[in-house]
Amino acid sequence: MIYLDYVSTTPLRKEVKETYTQLLSKYFANADSMHSLGYEVNGLMEKSRSLIAQYLKVNDNELFFTSGASESNNMAIKGVAFAYASRGKHIITTKVEHSSVYNTFKELEEIFGYDVDYISVDNQGRLNLNELENKIRDDTILVSTMLINNEVGMINPISKIHEIIQKKNKKTFFHVDMVQALGKIPLDLSFVDLASFSAHKIYGLKGSGLLYKKNSVQIVPLINGGQQESGLRGGTSNALVNIVLAKTIRLALEQLDYNYQYVLSLNQYLRKILNEIQDIVINSPSANVSPYILNLSCIGYKPEVLVHDLESQGCFVSTKSACSSKKNDISRTLKAMGIDEKIAGSALRISFSHLTTKEDIDEFIETLKISLQRVKKQR
Amino acid sequence: MIYLDYVSTTPLRKEVKETYTQLLSKYFANADSMHSLGYEVNGLMEKSRSLIAQYLKVNDNELFFTSGASESNNMAIKGVAFAYASRGKHIITTKVEHSSVYNTFKELEEIFGYDVDYISVDNQGRLNLNELENKIRDDTILVSTMLINNEVGMINPISKIHEIIQKKNKKTFFHVDMVQALGKIPLDLSFVDLASFSAHKIYGLKGSGLLYKKNSVQIVPLINGGQQESGLRGGTSNALVNIVLAKTIRLALEQLDYNYQYVLSLNQYLRKILNEIQDIVINSPSANVSPYILNLSCIGYKPEVLVHDLESQGCFVSTKSACSSKKNDISRTLKAMGIDEKIAGSALRISFSHLTTKEDIDEFIETLKISLQRVKKQR
Repeated sequence: MIYLDYVSTTPLRKEVKETYTQLLSKYFANADSMHSLGYEVNGLMEKSRSLIAQYLKVNDNELFFTSGASESNNMAIKGVAFAYASRGKHIITTKVEHSSVYNTFKELEEIFGYDVDYISVDNQGRLNLNELENKIRDDTILVSTMLINNEVGMINPISKIHEIIQKKNKKTFFHVDMVQALGKIPLDLSFVDLASFSAHKIYGLKGSGLLYKKNSVQIVPLINGGQQESGLRGGTSNALVNIVLAKTIRLALEQLDYNYQYVLSLNQYLRKILNEIQDIVINSPSANVSPYILNLSCIGYKPEVLVHDLESQGCFVSTKSACSSKKNDISRTLKAMGIDEKIAGSALRISFSHLTTKEDIDEFIETLKISLQRVKKQR
Repeated sequence: MIYLDYVSTTPLRKEVKETYTQLLSKYFANADSMHSLGYEVNGLMEKSRSLIAQYLKVNDNELFFTSGASESNNMAIKGVAFAYASRGKHIITTKVEHSSVYNTFKELEEIFGYDVDYISVDNQGRLNLNELENKIRDDTILVSTMLINNEVGMINPISKIHEIIQKKNKKTFFHVDMVQALGKIPLDLSFVDLASFSAHKIYGLKGSGLLYKKNSVQIVPLINGGQQESGLRGGTSNALVNIVLAKTIRLALEQLDYNYQYVLSLNQYLRKILNEIQDIVINSPSANVSPYILNLSCIGYKPEVLVHDLESQGCFVSTKSACSSKKNDISRTLKAMGIDEKIAGSALRISFSHLTTKEDIDEFIETLKISLQRVKKQR
């Protein structure tokens, strides 16, 4: 099996699974119970929070455990939007966000009457920074952008965006979806007010996420409930899952530079070969891009048909974000980049891991060549 | 160890843990990936949904997997409140709800300007049904009550409440928090429009919950995102956790009647002995009450001190809901029942399981007697 769909999700790391299953056998108490069974679990969970804070160079009380990055994104965006509505109802995001950000802005716009600007990108996926600067107003309470795009891989200039926000309105908060960046590139949270993370994208458990929120930022809770997570996220703590998140993140950050260079070389190797194949166009930009993601189009081919033919040969890739895989429309990101419909409509997304080998790439290419020969072009 | 805090959380059932750890070793794909790895996981998850639908006698497409009951409660209440705001902004709950319901209503009242009525209870915890009937208006869009109270155990007359709602305003939706009822008493979902469930209260995994929602009810999503859960709950499916929920619920429903009678006999046995101990008052009502919960007060004793002394003897109980355990205030439920502050301020909550033995109860009583002797009364 050649799995090249690591952006959708990653296999659970053996060390994480072992620790987790050991914890499952050992602990069950409610972390909020006022007896030693609860204290013990709570202590381990707070130690995990503290370790993650060290890894991310933030304070313990700025981290909130969630059920995943979609929850974190909703918690951050709606949380700020509702908390600061009296200051202003203007919020800004981009045209190329993940559905958990994009659809949250849509909901705020359509149901709650917020004024939303969606910033455009150019054909390299570069955010229009002039447009962003012009759109920030006195009543802008939030800007939300991703750090690494999940479909083509472009990297947003977070420090520059932070600078623009600071220049235009110091009171505007900045939220960044860092899901595809954690464990892939070095992070600096000093530029952002809120950030979202996921465990299952870094060889951790599904149903596990994190929100970073500076203490100076107020949010209205998304999930009201008890005293858990400083009263900002109700529900019995998923303590054992939260405990192993520290290990998950630590292991993801190990050898980050080495892995980056390794995956970069795989990416460049594949790009070079793909460039020589007729009918194939690379949609991912060539600069300011994560090497972990490579978006390409096999012009004239139906991507769903190609994905299934590749799969029949044991090779697993995707057409676009798994979260919107069942809609047969064109990727929002490729559309925003102004990529021709014929090209955008034939897109495949390849995504790599430090686990990917050069042999995997070679086999993928051979497999792709076979598929391109035996799958008929449209019309 | 004598654990009598099953209302806070339950130990993970061995069969569930085994199935779950096997799944963890076998599957990792994103259930939304459009390749066979994803289809396989998705198929198992949908089979689980279908089985649960059979167990609860509802349709598959009326069940939504969530990260727990607090999320389910927020998703139901805010979902309906926001979806039907144009019809009316009057919503009703009770004074004795779990914090994930109560604080959700508080947020809707304080942040979103909803008009909320909190229905009172009598000294037996019985909901004031006349008050409820009088409060339902033309613009009432939602009534939310729990089925079994998590602090004293009273059972609300769901079918009667349904009848009252139908009589007053057929357009008013009825949401019921069934967390403490699933696996304890028979459920009939035909009376309700929405209902919330939790796995970790029935020997399942934490971070696992369910929302039942009739197809006729619209909700605004709490967690916006991709196509998951019919587009009403974004985020990569926590597929393996959702898969084992079917087994968790099936096992919880097995021997429900037998377990009920067994726990009832334990409860009656304990009540009888406690009634003979000076300074002890039972706060749980004597009728229309779940035998799984017994709230009592050791008058004049600080409950935190008693809990810790009991614990030092290996006996684990709680003072009140774990979700608000860190506030040293009086239980909202006991206060609403009009119980004297001195009594309400000394409350302990004992909760039983089918795993509890008569020997556990005997040992608990001996332990409690020792604690009452050596712990000093206040003042």
